Amino acid sequence: MRNILVIGSGKSASYLIKYLLDKSETENLYITVGDLNIGNASKLIRNHKNATAIALDVFNQKSRVEAVKAADIVISMLPARYHIEVAKDCITYNKNMVTASYVSDEMQALNTQAINKGLIFMNEIGVDPGIDHMSAMHVIDRIEEQGGKLILFESFTGGLVAPESDNNLWNYKFTWNPRNVVLAGQGSAAKFLQEGTYKYIPYNRLFRRTEFLDVDGFGRFEAYANRDSLKYQDIYGLEDVKTLYRGTIRRVGFSRAWNVFAALGMTDDSYTIDDSKNMTYRDFVNSFLPYSPTDSVELKFRHALKIDQDDIIWDKFVELDIFSAKKMVELDKATPAQILQKILMDSWTLEPTDKDMIVMYHKFGYELNGKKHQIDATMVALGEDQTYTAMSKTVGLPVAIATLAILNNKITTPGVLRPINKEVYEPILKELEEYGIIFNEKEVPYLGYNPLHV
Amino acid sequence: MRNILVIGSGKSASYLIKYLLDKSETENLYITVGDLNIGNASKLIRNHKNATAIALDVFNQKSRVEAVKAADIVISMLPARYHIEVAKDCITYNKNMVTASYVSDEMQALNTQAINKGLIFMNEIGVDPGIDHMSAMHVIDRIEEQGGKLILFESFTGGLVAPESDNNLWNYKFTWNPRNVVLAGQGSAAKFLQEGTYKYIPYNRLFRRTEFLDVDGFGRFEAYANRDSLKYQDIYGLEDVKTLYRGTIRRVGFSRAWNVFAALGMTDDSYTIDDSKNMTYRDFVNSFLPYSPTDSVELKFRHALKIDQDDIIWDKFVELDIFSAKKMVELDKATPAQILQKILMDSWTLEPTDKDMIVMYHKFGYELNGKKHQIDATMVALGEDQTYTAMSKTVGLPVAIATLAILNNKITTPGVLRPINKEVYEPILKELEEYGIIFNEKEVPYLGYNPLHV
Repeated sequence: MRNILVIGSGKSASYLIKYLLDKSETENLYITVGDLNIGNASKLIRNHKNATAIALDVFNQKSRVEAVKAADIVISMLPARYHIEVAKDCITYNKNMVTASYVSDEMQALNTQAINKGLIFMNEIGVDPGIDHMSAMHVIDRIEEQGGKLILFESFTGGLVAPESDNNLWNYKFTWNPRNVVLAGQGSAAKFLQEGTYKYIPYNRLFRRTEFLDVDGFGRFEAYANRDSLKYQDIYGLEDVKTLYRGTIRRVGFSRAWNVFAALGMTDDSYTIDDSKNMTYRDFVNSFLPYSPTDSVELKFRHALKIDQDDIIWDKFVELDIFSAKKMVELDKATPAQILQKILMDSWTLEPTDKDMIVMYHKFGYELNGKKHQIDATMVALGEDQTYTAMSKTVGLPVAIATLAILNNKITTPGVLRPINKEVYEPILKELEEYGIIFNEKEVPYLGYNPLHV
Repeated sequence: MRNILVIGSGKSASYLIKYLLDKSETENLYITVGDLNIGNASKLIRNHKNATAIALDVFNQKSRVEAVKAADIVISMLPARYHIEVAKDCITYNKNMVTASYVSDEMQALNTQAINKGLIFMNEIGVDPGIDHMSAMHVIDRIEEQGGKLILFESFTGGLVAPESDNNLWNYKFTWNPRNVVLAGQGSAAKFLQEGTYKYIPYNRLFRRTEFLDVDGFGRFEAYANRDSLKYQDIYGLEDVKTLYRGTIRRVGFSRAWNVFAALGMTDDSYTIDDSKNMTYRDFVNSFLPYSPTDSVELKFRHALKIDQDDIIWDKFVELDIFSAKKMVELDKATPAQILQKILMDSWTLEPTDKDMIVMYHKFGYELNGKKHQIDATMVALGEDQTYTAMSKTVGLPVAIATLAILNNKITTPGVLRPINKEVYEPILKELEEYGIIFNEKEVPYLGYNPLHV
C-alpha cells in the first residue's frame, strides 16, 4: 500500500478524498486524513477500509512529524500560511508534497533543497490558481508550437451560484470565504497591460470598469480587474504580450451595485465603529450619509448615489434589507466591512439545496503568418450538492490527480513547482475532462482593443 | 541677557525671529538661531547685535547638548519628528521648551518628568494647531462661564493665496508643504459627530461632501472634513457636544475639481509607476483611462468623470496643462501622488510677489436659559511678502509670545502642555490683535442641522 497523508478536511477536501478512496483498490492506496476536527475527516472517509481519520494539530510537532514520516506523499489542504511547517518536515523526511495554494516566499525558499533531494513540491494546483494555469498554458504552448506569437492574454474566473439556485437580484451567493469577497480589490490600484501601456484602476472605480463576457449556454457575465494581472507574465513566458488582464467574474449588474458599498465606505476594514453592537442595519447605512432631521435614509441614499426612481439597482439594496430599523448589527466594535459581511450573509448564504458554479474564461490573441487570431476558451463546472461543490471539485480533483501522478512517477521534475509544464498539465487536463471539467474553445475574430486597426 | 535658542530657521521661523529681535533690547534677550543651513539662519537675523546664527545638526549630540545648555529656553521649529531629542536634553538640563507641533506620544511621555522638574513644554502653539485652540477655548470658556452649554462646535482652517494674488481657476496656490496637500484625507474615513451620531466619509466622497462658509469682506469658501474631528473632544472638554466637526478651507469649487484627481487614482502614494521618467503629462493621465486607438485622452477623461461640455471644471484641468504631450514627468519610479505634485507645482507655486492668506472659521452653538444661540468667529491673516507670510506670522508669533511669557513667569503651570488654559491664551490672543490677528465674532441664528426644530 502507498500511504497518502491529507492534512485538512475542510470545504475543498471532499472531492479530493472521494477520488483517492475510489482509486484506493486499483492503485493500492491507503489514505490518512488528519484534521483538528476529527469528525469532519471521519465524515469524508465514510468508514472506507482503505482510510483512517486522525486528530492532527499542525502546530504539534511530535504528531505532525509522526504523520509525515508514515506517509509516502503529503497533501496539505490547510490555509496557505500553515503549509510551511509541513513542507519543512517533508524536506527532512524526504516526502513529496502537493498544495492548492500560491507559492509563498517561504515555500519558494525550499526550492534548492527540494531539487537537491529530488523532491516534488507541487503548488497552485487547485482551480484558481491551478486549472487556470493548466488550461492557459495548454493553449499558449500550442500556439507557440505552431509558430504563433501571443499578443493578448486575458483570464477570468468566478465562484458563483448555479443557475438553478440563482434566485436573488444580485445573482450571487457566498460560495467561498465571504470576508475575501467584501475586501476584494482593496489596497493598491489594479494594474494591467492594454495594448502595450500600463493601466491603473483605483478601488473607487474598480467596479465600474467591468467588461462583459458571454458563455454559451450560460448567458452574459461581467468581470472586474484583479490587482495582480502582471504576476504571471514571467511565469507564463508572456514578456512580449501587449495586453494582459486578469479579472473576477460576476453576473451582470453585480459590480455596479457593489460599487455603492465601496463608494459609501461600507467595505472599509481599517477602523472600528464604537457603538456597532447596538446599531440597526439602518443606523449603519445612515452613518455614511449626512444628518437630516426629516429626510429618510432611503432618500439620502438615493440622492448620495444618484439612484434614479426607475433604476433596478435600488431593489438590490431593498432585498438585502439594509434599511431595516429592526435588525441589529450585534457585532461589538466591528469594522464597516465586518458589519457589511454580516448583513450580506443574511441573504447570500447558500441554502442546503443550493448548488454552486465555477466559471472560467480565457482569451488568447496571437499573430500567425502575419495575421491576427483569437481563441476563447470557457469552462463551467456545476456543484452537485453542498458537500460535492463545484469549488471542491475544481480545487480537489487536480490536487488528487497530481498526487497520484507523482506517486506513479509520471511527474518527475523536482523542485517547488506550479503546473505550467506539459508533463504536468496535459494528463491532468485530460483526466479532468472525464469529470466534466471541459474547456470549450472557439476561434473568434481578433478584435483586441484596436477594432479599427484589425 | 536671557538666552533663547531657536532650532530651525525654515519658512515658519521668520516672524518668530523678527519678534524676538524687536523685543531683544527692552526684554534683554539674546537669540541663537541654529540650523543645518547657517545661511538661512543668518539671513533671518540680519546682523542684529543681539543674535547669532550657528550651524546645528540636531542629530549631533555634542553640539546639540552644548546649545541647549547655553540657553534659558529652547524653541524647536524643526519638523515634528525631530523634537524629541531636543526635548530629552531639555529635561536633562532643566530648560523650558516651545514647539508649534502636535504633541507626539513620545513628547506626552515626558509629562511627569517635566512636572516633577517644574518645566514648561508648550506645544501646539502655532496656527493649526495653536491659534485654533486658543480662539476656540476663549469663546468656549466664556459661554460656559455665562452658564451656557455647548451643543455644537465646528472649526475650519485653510492656508490659501491672498485675494490680490489669486489669479488661477482653482483659486489656490501652495503656501505650505505641497505633499501634504496632495495626500490630504487619505487613510481611514473622516469621522465626526452630527446631532449626536457618528458620521463617516470615505476618501472617495470626502471632496464632494463640503459645506460653504461666508467670511465678511472675503466672500464664500468651502470646507471638507478633516480625518480627526473628534481628537479634541476630551481636550476641549466637549464630551456632551452634539455636533463636532473640523475641516479644511478652500475656495468654492476647488474640492469638486480635486475629487477628479482622487477618483482617477492620481493621488495614490502606495505604488510606483515603472516608466514614469519617460512619460508625458498626457501619458500619466491616460494611464488611468481605458485604452482606445481613436478616442482622445480629453474625451475619455470627460466621459469617465461625466464632465459636461459647459462645466467650468474642465478649464481647471486644461489650465494645469495635464493633457500636454510635451511636458515630461521626469521623475524616476514615482508614485502617482509624486507625479501629480510635480504637475501642480508648475502652476501652483507662488510667484515672488505673491502673498498668502490664512482663514479660520469657528461656529459655536450653545443653549442658555432654554434658548439656542450661535456665535461665528472668523479670522483672516494676510501675508506681507514671501518671507513674512501669513503662515509664518500665524505660526511664529504665538510661539514667540508664549516664549517670552514663559521667560517672564507669566505662564507658570509645568508639564507637556497645549495652549488651552486662560492663563496662556488670554494674553497671547490679546497681543496677537496688535499684529492684526483678530477674530470677528457675530451672533447668528442657531440653525444646527435641525432647521425645522429650532
